[in-house]
Amino acid sequence: MNAPDPAFGSRVRESFARQAVMATIGAQLERVDAGRVDIRLPFRDDLTQQHGYFHAGVIATIADSACGYAALSLMPAGADVLSIEFKINMLSPATGDAIVARGEVIRAGRKVMVCRADVHSVTGAKEKLVAAMQGTMMVVSKGE
Amino acid sequence: MNAPDPAFGSRVRESFARQAVMATIGAQLERVDAGRVDIRLPFRDDLTQQHGYFHAGVIATIADSACGYAALSLMPAGADVLSIEFKINMLSPATGDAIVARGEVIRAGRKVMVCRADVHSVTGAKEKLVAAMQGTMMVVSKGE
Amino acid sequence: MNAPDPAFGSRVRESFARQAVMATIGAQLERVDAGRVDIRLPFRDDLTQQHGYFHAGVIATIADSACGYAALSLMPAGADVLSIEFKINMLSPATGDAIVARGEVIRAGRKVMVCRADVHSVTGAKEKLVAAMQGTMMVVSKGE
Amino acid sequence: MNAPDPAFGSRVRESFARQAVMATIGAQLERVDAGRVDIRLPFRDDLTQQHGYFHAGVIATIADSACGYAALSLMPAGADVLSIEFKINMLSPATGDAIVARGEVIRAGRKVMVCRADVHSVTGAKEKLVAAMQGTMMVVSKGE
Repeated sequence: MNAPDPAFGSRVRESFARQAVMATIGAQLERVDAGRVDIRLPFRDDLTQQHGYFHAGVIATIADSACGYAALSLMPAGADVLSIEFKINMLSPATGDAIVARGEVIRAGRKVMVCRADVHSVTGAKEKLVAAMQGTMMVVSKGE
Repeated sequence: MNAPDPAFGSRVRESFARQAVMATIGAQLERVDAGRVDIRLPFRDDLTQQHGYFHAGVIATIADSACGYAALSLMPAGADVLSIEFKINMLSPATGDAIVARGEVIRAGRKVMVCRADVHSVTGAKEKLVAAMQGTMMVVSKGE
Repeated sequence: MNAPDPAFGSRVRESFARQAVMATIGAQLERVDAGRVDIRLPFRDDLTQQHGYFHAGVIATIADSACGYAALSLMPAGADVLSIEFKINMLSPATGDAIVARGEVIRAGRKVMVCRADVHSVTGAKEKLVAAMQGTMMVVSKGE
Repeated sequence: MNAPDPAFGSRVRESFARQAVMATIGAQLERVDAGRVDIRLPFRDDLTQQHGYFHAGVIATIADSACGYAALSLMPAGADVLSIEFKINMLSPATGDAIVARGEVIRAGRKVMVCRADVHSVTGAKEKLVAAMQGTMMVVSKGE
């Protein structure tokens, strides 16, 4: 996909650094390409639900940011991104060394972008699909 | 709604206490009625996105648990709850003193329960609807 | 809710009359209030899935229009509505004499409106909740 | 993916033939592979919304069946499929000669299957992505 702002990478990294919750849970921004962003979250016991797996909301937190930043990477300079909504399916218990959310834009509109994210658990060299998101991001233009 | 297990309240409270992420973010279980559960989350700077509002994923975290425990309250003794999926719309910036997610079962099936949660921000005595969830919870029977 | 265009009722009725699929399936516009629209669909064998119930997509068709027109009723004169997305849960087999989708705006933004619709089956004087939708509608301003 | 019932193809085709709404709107079952099913819908003026595009609910109708039959193809003999829920984003106006929904199972569980469908419009040799669905299907075992 084509990014209208060549500086999209630094713009995404700066915005990610301002999302305080990312540091709180220990999420790391990995790949930042035009229309594709990956976020990794190492396993931590204090982010779990009652069975010791990652809580669905924690999974949604990194998947939503992966979608949002995939969308932001395709927006013009000065624009910002807001989540309108998302839907996420939990496919398997999310455990292992870490989970990685891979967000991708499937439709880059002028006002609205639609994204999907697949979330995999990573245990050693093994990956397993644990969640799937589809969501809608709003382009917030400068001055709005 | 009718709870088949009269001890549903203690069952919900015990499970909530085992969701480590709830303590991590500071979420508190409030109302626990048959088919209705409220969870409150006081505002904290370290749970925010890039504009200083609660991150959508954090809102989803308490809304998902409110839905899940509303569902669990209507399940037979020995059953457990798993989130199959949820969808959430962000309606307004989530800020203020706290947010409260109010989960409610709209269909209590034997195998699957469907819930909605409304999330309000609370500022002093004023409330504002900031997010709305609809999700699907699975009844996990003892021994499964 | 407050409709900025006092002629919202005729605007909704005219647009509904142009949705050719509504006549094809036999759907009828009932209540048209500011922010609330009901659509009724009498049962027909040729709208069913493999068990003889209304197909989920047919239920979604009237629920989406009920949401869309609830949203349109709150838009300024000259604006039009487009569905961005919706999510629908099937709660019970949809059968009976008819189904009625009741759409309602839960957040009326300037650019985006968020709606819910409950769909009930009607058998004689008895109603049963058979589906629940939550969706997002875009305000398309004149000239866009 | 691996189909436990080698006769899945005829089972899907028989069930599709019993979905009366498919004949009503003119939908055709195309590809039926293990975990992947395509449904085509030629354009018809009587299936449109107010701007002359396919109504979102009509798009959802074929996408839901494509998802449901992709799921059914992976179920054991004697099982049936029910839609629990789905979410669909409208990405572009759906017009052209026809639309094709391509459903695919992304998680085949014993009780629940999760699917995605992409819907493309087809105009001559040109295809365009017009909608994207993610949904949850229930495995209904024989005798349940």
